[in-house]
Amino acid sequence: MPHGRFSTSLCSPKIDVVIDMGNPFLNRTVDGFLKIGAVGACKVAAEETFECLHRGDVSKHKLEHALKKMCKEGAYWGTVAGVYVGMVYGVERVRGRSDWKNAMIGGALSGALISGASNNHKDKIIKDAITAGAVATAVEFINYLT
Amino acid sequence: MPHGRFSTSLCSPKIDVVIDMGNPFLNRTVDGFLKIGAVGACKVAAEETFECLHRGDVSKHKLEHALKKMCKEGAYWGTVAGVYVGMVYGVERVRGRSDWKNAMIGGALSGALISGASNNHKDKIIKDAITAGAVATAVEFINYLT
Repeated sequence: MPHGRFSTSLCSPKIDVVIDMGNPFLNRTVDGFLKIGAVGACKVAAEETFECLHRGDVSKHKLEHALKKMCKEGAYWGTVAGVYVGMVYGVERVRGRSDWKNAMIGGALSGALISGASNNHKDKIIKDAITAGAVATAVEFINYLT
Repeated sequence: MPHGRFSTSLCSPKIDVVIDMGNPFLNRTVDGFLKIGAVGACKVAAEETFECLHRGDVSKHKLEHALKKMCKEGAYWGTVAGVYVGMVYGVERVRGRSDWKNAMIGGALSGALISGASNNHKDKIIKDAITAGAVATAVEFINYLT
């Protein structure tokens, strides 16, 4: 696998807001929140732009609606990412190792936490945890391939 | 960001089926299909095991159903991953650079392709492409953070 490519691509993202909270755990969580929140907001912006172009009408009301949706979805994506990044960091510190199992455990814990925050069904929380763990593991494997 | 950790985690996954198709594009696609397909199948296995333990009954019929679902979902996850990994590789070769935009473009193209294969609504295909591109970008950013 090409090791060298990681270091080149690490320099690439232009969005780089660095906020030092004085704690690596908090730093990562806030970083994840801001970056992925921005991606979520951009996604909504792209969707709404497409919608406007498609229907051909732009009104002040629509713009306000789009902005609200951007903030809402950006905050949601950011929260999910912040929780996940924080969890993976925590699991890494507890396990003392850095491998794909961190992503699996971190994903499962985040899935359970986020699911538990929005509903109280025990079964649903466990199923969401399994799904989130599997998705996180899949994403971790895809990293090695791309 | 800790560069060193990438090289340690690269050695970790125990599942390592290497099939040489004689072409890096095909190699990556097949690798993605097999690895993520396995993750998808494991996810269904975990879900079904939880279901069985929860209800407390295991029958031959249920086992057959679970196996079928594992194959079906594994194939779906594998196909999505294979298409994505192949797309990212193709975009990387065409652009000649390796950064997060590859993930965005590859994600959007894969989303459009997979959505186009399952439905014919032009609007839905574009929206799916936007969503897939955003998710791929988010995942790429999360890589740098974990």
